[in-house]
Order: sequence, then structure tokens, then C-alpha cells
Amino acid sequence: MPEVIHSLDPRTGASAEEVGTETSRTDVDRIVRTAAGAAADLAALGSAGRATLLDTIADELEADREHLVAVADRETALGPDRLHSELTRTTYQLRFFADVVREGSYLEATIDHARETPMGPQPDVRRFLVPLGPVAVFAASNFPFAFSVPGGDTAAAIAAGSPVVVKAHFAHPATSELAFSAMERAVARAGAPEGTIGRVHGFDAGTHLVTHPGITAVAFTGSLSGGRALFDLAARRPEPIPFFGELGSLNPLVVTRLAAAERAAEIGAQWVASSTLGAGQFCTKPGLALIPAGPDGRAVRDAAVDKIQSLDTMWLLNDSIATSYHQGIEKRSALTTVEVHSGPVRSDTAGFAVTPTLIECQASDLHGQDSPLLQECFGPTAVLATYETEDELLGILRRLEGSLTATVHLGKDEQAVPQQLLATLRERAGRLIVNGFPTGVTVNWAMQHGGPWPSTTSQHTSVGATAIRRFLRPVAFQNFPDPLLPPELRESNPHGVPRRVDGELELRADPSIA
Amino acid sequence: MPEVIHSLDPRTGASAEEVGTETSRTDVDRIVRTAAGAAADLAALGSAGRATLLDTIADELEADREHLVAVADRETALGPDRLHSELTRTTYQLRFFADVVREGSYLEATIDHARETPMGPQPDVRRFLVPLGPVAVFAASNFPFAFSVPGGDTAAAIAAGSPVVVKAHFAHPATSELAFSAMERAVARAGAPEGTIGRVHGFDAGTHLVTHPGITAVAFTGSLSGGRALFDLAARRPEPIPFFGELGSLNPLVVTRLAAAERAAEIGAQWVASSTLGAGQFCTKPGLALIPAGPDGRAVRDAAVDKIQSLDTMWLLNDSIATSYHQGIEKRSALTTVEVHSGPVRSDTAGFAVTPTLIECQASDLHGQDSPLLQECFGPTAVLATYETEDELLGILRRLEGSLTATVHLGKDEQAVPQQLLATLRERAGRLIVNGFPTGVTVNWAMQHGGPWPSTTSQHTSVGATAIRRFLRPVAFQNFPDPLLPPELRESNPHGVPRRVDGELELRADPSIA
Repeated sequence: MPEVIHSLDPRTGASAEEVGTETSRTDVDRIVRTAAGAAADLAALGSAGRATLLDTIADELEADREHLVAVADRETALGPDRLHSELTRTTYQLRFFADVVREGSYLEATIDHARETPMGPQPDVRRFLVPLGPVAVFAASNFPFAFSVPGGDTAAAIAAGSPVVVKAHFAHPATSELAFSAMERAVARAGAPEGTIGRVHGFDAGTHLVTHPGITAVAFTGSLSGGRALFDLAARRPEPIPFFGELGSLNPLVVTRLAAAERAAEIGAQWVASSTLGAGQFCTKPGLALIPAGPDGRAVRDAAVDKIQSLDTMWLLNDSIATSYHQGIEKRSALTTVEVHSGPVRSDTAGFAVTPTLIECQASDLHGQDSPLLQECFGPTAVLATYETEDELLGILRRLEGSLTATVHLGKDEQAVPQQLLATLRERAGRLIVNGFPTGVTVNWAMQHGGPWPSTTSQHTSVGATAIRRFLRPVAFQNFPDPLLPPELRESNPHGVPRRVDGELELRADPSIA
Repeated sequence: MPEVIHSLDPRTGASAEEVGTETSRTDVDRIVRTAAGAAADLAALGSAGRATLLDTIADELEADREHLVAVADRETALGPDRLHSELTRTTYQLRFFADVVREGSYLEATIDHARETPMGPQPDVRRFLVPLGPVAVFAASNFPFAFSVPGGDTAAAIAAGSPVVVKAHFAHPATSELAFSAMERAVARAGAPEGTIGRVHGFDAGTHLVTHPGITAVAFTGSLSGGRALFDLAARRPEPIPFFGELGSLNPLVVTRLAAAERAAEIGAQWVASSTLGAGQFCTKPGLALIPAGPDGRAVRDAAVDKIQSLDTMWLLNDSIATSYHQGIEKRSALTTVEVHSGPVRSDTAGFAVTPTLIECQASDLHGQDSPLLQECFGPTAVLATYETEDELLGILRRLEGSLTATVHLGKDEQAVPQQLLATLRERAGRLIVNGFPTGVTVNWAMQHGGPWPSTTSQHTSVGATAIRRFLRPVAFQNFPDPLLPPELRESNPHGVPRRVDGELELRADPSIA
């Protein structure tokens, strides 16, 4: 008998609803075959057709907004405000990808006409990017819309023209089903082929997806241990496939002496607010703050301690995260050199409720990459470490594993120390932030959400315009008669896509877009 | 005692020279550390400095041209004409990458100014690509210049700003040392840091390179078995690194009925010429031709048989390739359904000489991917298969593994069948050629040298402008004061690189270049 899927309420820990059963291997196989069968027709929709599909998905999600938010709130306890704004971001993201696809640069259309070179006469060669094929998308627990069924990986893959099979996250199955239904309606309305999107439930269905010969790439957002296991499965296939994983990130935040002197209270309070946003369940949570020794650093620390002590208990997304959180706090608290700060621990809470907790230590306590103080701990906790000298600070930063982000708080017009500091952080992260906080990842052309291992497993981003590139591969056409070329590579450029012709960039014909 | 390295003469099979010893693990470690130490200074050279370095390497290679070609001919038996033109291609490629780097689009510089969106106010975000770090380049046997020490992978990595450690190929160690010396002179002359390029010799040194924590990516051109083993090593590291491998390719070639009716003799002879070019040791060798049944197809076949019978013995690059060739021919010849064609087998040849051989069969003999007829066999041999119907042809093409290239010979103005044929081939290859031959990979902006597994292991090319992308990763800068930004992302754009600003492409300031 297949396992029944329960939708749990984090505020009680109890099952609120049954949502079907886990997907059998036979059904996974059928779903992947349907996706593979849809690939040619989805590609044939072209950029314009896929842009319409993305817009239609956004419309269908908006049309079911109240229902989606209510169910997601019941399943995640993230609160209606946060969930409304996350859904806004999700539909904005779908429409942004529609614009990116319409603009056409993502195709990297390139033409080199036949010509004479020092190597002799060279043929006409034209190149653009084509869809990779069916993509498995593993939904994340912490963003039930934006990094889940209708999230960024799904949007990017559809934008690329690759069908998607989502592995729904067990922590919000009802929200997943609701979003999937909205997407199915959009697929039908936009005239996209059946199989453009599919979804599966269950751990076993997930591993079967990664090893299925019909899957051509995997996108994953989740834990380091789970991600590494799936990465290994993808790499060990007879035909290995790319694994675009986002696995865990410490996201260091540095406060310089000048910054501490200028804005101690503000930085301390805002850092704790950022670290506990969404109950500290952001992949970009700034989990380690390095602050200077001395009275100004002390003021940062005092503001942070005040802030953490003012916070009430928070509900985590599921039992597994809550258990890991308790173990993580216990392990860190057991270290003899740390101080632990939190508000009053309440005994009257139910479900997956936990107490926000700050761990305070000296930078000299941060030994080696195995220290629990240098490991990500999901939930409303962070480590505050005091450094004595800039050399000590740089030494610690050089030992950190890769992160999605690194943040620096600088003084006004501070420029002396920072270049060395910024160069060190650049080696360790994919996005550097000055005088801000890393939580909140905007969707635009320039965003980079991905950094050195283990934060991500590729040289790409999973948020922003170029996230599409993960699901494309190049094909060149040599000596082709013009009528046999894809439209984007024909001499006349009927779709007006931006191209590089004989080495020179040419903007698109329609000035209203480019 | 470390193993002595012998430079063998393929024309005799004997050692012509000793070229030092294999690199010890201690020396590999030292060389990688030196490369890692060079990374920051190499990046700091900037695009202009690295372009000068690439041009200087080309100059130094040209200055030693006669010597390089003489030694390479003695080590590879490829002949001075071919080697001169390969060296021309190699220096052209270095200079091309210098131009690509100067042009600046490879940085993907992108700016999104702070603005209001439906998601609320969004920060200023700017993004470009930075070097990955030290890259291990495994030289190929078959191109002692263009895919070896000073070859495309090395040029692309240096262009990206990543130091290179080359694993020299055992089949041309003396050429490797000579080219390395020329590159070392160029590094000194161009003011690049020591450690910009290094080289190691020996199998064990190669595996040590792939697992060394200082190496951030691997580029490999070689066999499927060797490549798969190194791919697995790279994927199993505690911090996995990208493996850009080119592992083997059948490169199917299809002749339609109309093409056979129009140009049978020309196609048959030229196909065999392409398949035996460089003694059939090209990764783009068209190893399987599919020709139509009937008198026109028969005429293609007759021309191919005439051509193969006219060819003299050829020297292969090394003993291992010669042994595999003999085994491959034996295995194919043993199939009961094939006919084997070759010129007279001579008994008076020395060294690694072999007889060019054509294997003829029916398309119906091509069963499954395990058939030896569907496996690449390095050396001057290819398979000619006759298809009865277009459906049979498409059925075979759909079963082929991924290739670097796929070629179609069409009749004049033929357009009816081809779209389905071309769509099928596009699923299977990275470069499609009409009425031409795949050997000869030009260096330009549009080239794609890479296709589905096992032909390559990534969604990138190893030849052409975008080969640089393999050795770069994105970094975003959020809310940065202008003076702290890299020059390419400052508001004033002092280097005039092409950028995307608020979604719109902006060509570079200097119209003489873009």
C-alpha cells in the first residue's frame, strides 16, 4: 500500500488533512515519459508561446491567491503577510521570466558568416541554445511558493523550454497540489502540451526521478546531506546529468570598527531581525556575525542580545527542522566558551515551536570547518563572534566554506581596509552586500543566488534572468541553407532577437523592448 | 625512483629521447600551490593584461615554430604540413581569445539600479563573472598543439584569469616541454605571475591533480574510459568540482536519396578522406555513414571503397591507439554480416603503422548501443551502413548516443524530409553540418564543440569564444559604494565593456571594437 500523505499543522504538530498518496515508481515512470513526450511541442511553442504560458501561470496563481495563502499558512505557519508577499514575488518572477524569454538574449544567438582567416577559408557557423529536456525540480520546504512547485526553478525550466517534474516537499503537500492545479489550468489555457509540468510525492519517488533516463537535469534546494546524496546519484548514472543544487550556507556578516562606531544599535538589532526572519528559515540567513572587540562592538552585541530577548517563540516548518534546531542549539550551548542568549523559554507552546537563540563567542573559538559554530543551523539562531584584529578577521574568513552571500557593514566613506576584506569575501560567496542584509533575494537581470560549494553545486544562479541558462545547451549549425535554420538564426532575423554577428553585438530590432 | 619519460617515434616504435621523469605527488602539490598563489595576481592583470599575455604566448610559439613542428612530427608522425597548420590554428586561437577578452562581453557585466517593483523597493545589484581558480587541463594525444599544452583549454582558462596546470600527454612529452618553455617565456615577458601555467607528467600525477583541493575545475580531452574515471574522481571529492570532458563521439553522417543521386562519387570519396584525416584520429571523425539503398547509394559506396583501397598505411600516435585499432578492426570484421574493405595490407611497415579499413553493413545490423559498429574506433576506419527507408534511418538515429557533430548531405533545394531528420540529429549532437564534413573545427564566436553525453560532460563548448565560460563564476555586488566596485561595474564604465543596464543591452563605448 502506498503511504498516505498528511498535511501537518506546525502550530499543533497534528495532521490537518490527507493529501493523496506517495507516487509509485510506475507512476514516476509514466510522468517522466509524459514530460519527455511534451518536450518537442513545448520547444515548438517558441519564445512567444512560452512567455504566454508563464504569464498565464502567474494569472492562475493570482486568481487563487486567497485560497493558496490560507492553505499555505495552515501548512507552514509562516503567516499570511509573509505568504502574500511571497506569492507576489512568485508571480512577479514568472512574469519576469516571460519578459526575459521575449527579449531573446537568453538564446545567445550568434552568427559567423563564411570568411577567410589565417587558418584558411572558414564555413558559415550559427549557434544558439536549445532546451535540455525534462528537468526534475526538488521543492524547498521554506518557500512554499517561491522555491516550490511554481517557484524559480520551475519558471526557469519552462522559460528554457524544458518540461518540469516537481518533487513536492512533504512539509506542504496541500499547497503543492493547489499550485499544481493552477499550473495545469494555465498549461491547458495557454495551449501548452500535457506533460509540460508534472509532480510527484515521496522520498522514493524523488530518488527514482534523479536516476530516470528521461530526466536530463536536476534542480534542488535543501539540506547539504540530502543534496549531496542526490548529487552523487546524478553523477553516478550511466549518463551523468547536471545537478543544480543549493545545499547550505553560513552567510557571514562582518561589522568593521568604523561601522560599529557609527551604527552599533541599528546593526545589532537589524542583524538579529534578518537572522530570525521567517523563523530563521532563509537560505540567506546571516548565520555568523563578526564584530570588533571594544566598546563599539559591545554596543552591537548589546543591541543584538536585546533584540533576541524580545522575540517570542516561533513555529518551524516541520518536525525534522524543529528536531535539528533543538540538537543544534544543544550542541552549540554545550561549548564551554560560548554564552547563550534568548527570551524566556515558554512551556505552553504546541507544535513545532522553538525559542530564538543567540550564541555569543570569541573569534578565536571558531576553529576549523568542523566547529558547530561554523555550520548552518536552520531556524531562528545565529552566532555572534568578536574579533580582536583585522588580521584575525581575515584569517577566519579565509577558512570559511562557500556561502551564497557575504555582508559587510562599513563606516561612511570607509575605503582603507575594505578592498582586502572584499577580495577575501569574493572568494567565498556569490553575492556581496554592503550596509544591508542578505535575506530577501530580488529577481532581476543581475541577481546571483549561488556561490562556492557547498552553498551551490554549479557556476550558475537559481534566481534571476540567467537561471534559465541551467536548462539549455548550445547547438551550432554549419553551412545550413537559410530556410532550414531555426528562425532566430536566419539572415532576416524574423523574431528580432539580439544577436552577435561576425563578432559584433546587434540589439534587437524592436526598440520598444531593447 | 621516478619513471623516466620516453619520447617515442611512431615511425619506428622506439624511444628517440628521454624527457625527464614523471612528476611526484610532492611536486604536483608544489605546482598546484604555486598556481593557487598566482590566481589573485593573474586576475589583477585584468582583461587587457591577460589579452597581452595570450598574444605574447602566440608570439613565443611562432618564434619557435620550426623547432616545435620538427619535434612534434618526430613524436606524432602527423607530418609537417598538418603540424604547421595546427600550430597556425593554435596561435590564431590564442589571439582570438585575446580579442574576446578585450571585447569584454565575456564578463556578462549587468547592472540593475535600485528601483520600485511590485515586490516593493529593490536594491542596486551588479553582477559579473570572476575567475574560478586553478584549472587542471588534460592534454589530448591527437593534437599536440591545438588540444595540448598551449591548446584551447589552456587559452580559455588563461583568458578567464584562471591559472592552468597541464597534465602533459605521454605520447608527445618533448613537444609538451618545448611548448611549455615558450609559454613560460611569454609569462615572464608579459609580466604575469609565476604559476600562471604549470605542467605535470605521468598518470599518477594526473589523478593527484584531479583530487587536489587547490584545483577548482578540470578540462579533459581523451577516451571515454579514462574520462569517466576522472569524472568520477572529480564528483567524489569532498568539494566536487566541474569536469569539462570530451570523451568520445561517433559523429553520424547521413546521405539522403537526393544527395546520393546528385553527388554520389564526391560524397563517398570525401567522406573517406574526412574519416582518415590525421590517420582517423580526430574527435570529429565521421565514423558512421548512413547511405540509401539502391543504385545511387551503391555509387556512394563504390566511391568510398575505391578511396579506402587507394590509401597507404598510416602511423598512429602511439602503441595504445594502434593496439586498440587492431582490436577494433578485428571485432568488427568478425561480425558475420559485414564486408571489410582496405588496400593491400603491407608487411614491411614499422612502428605504429596500420591499414585504413572500411566496414560495410546494412542499417539493420546496427542493433543497440553495444554493437561495436556504433562505438567510436580511433584510427583510419569507419562504418558504412545502408538504410532501406527513411523510417529505418530515423529509428537508428534515435538510438545513437550523443555526438559532437552530426552531418547531413542533402540534395539541391531539398526541404521535405530534412526538418524531421534535422530535429532528430539536433537531439543527438552539438554541431550540425549540411553538405560538408565535421573534421576541422573553426575558432570563432559561434562554434560549438560539445554535445550530449558521452561526447562531452557539460553544457559548454571547448572551442570558440564561449569556452571561456567554463572557468568563470558569477559574483553579484549589492548596494556597493561606486569606488568599491570592480571597474567594469562602476557607473562610469571606465573600460567600456558591453553591459546590460536595467534590462537593456549597451554596446561598448569604443565603436572601433564593437
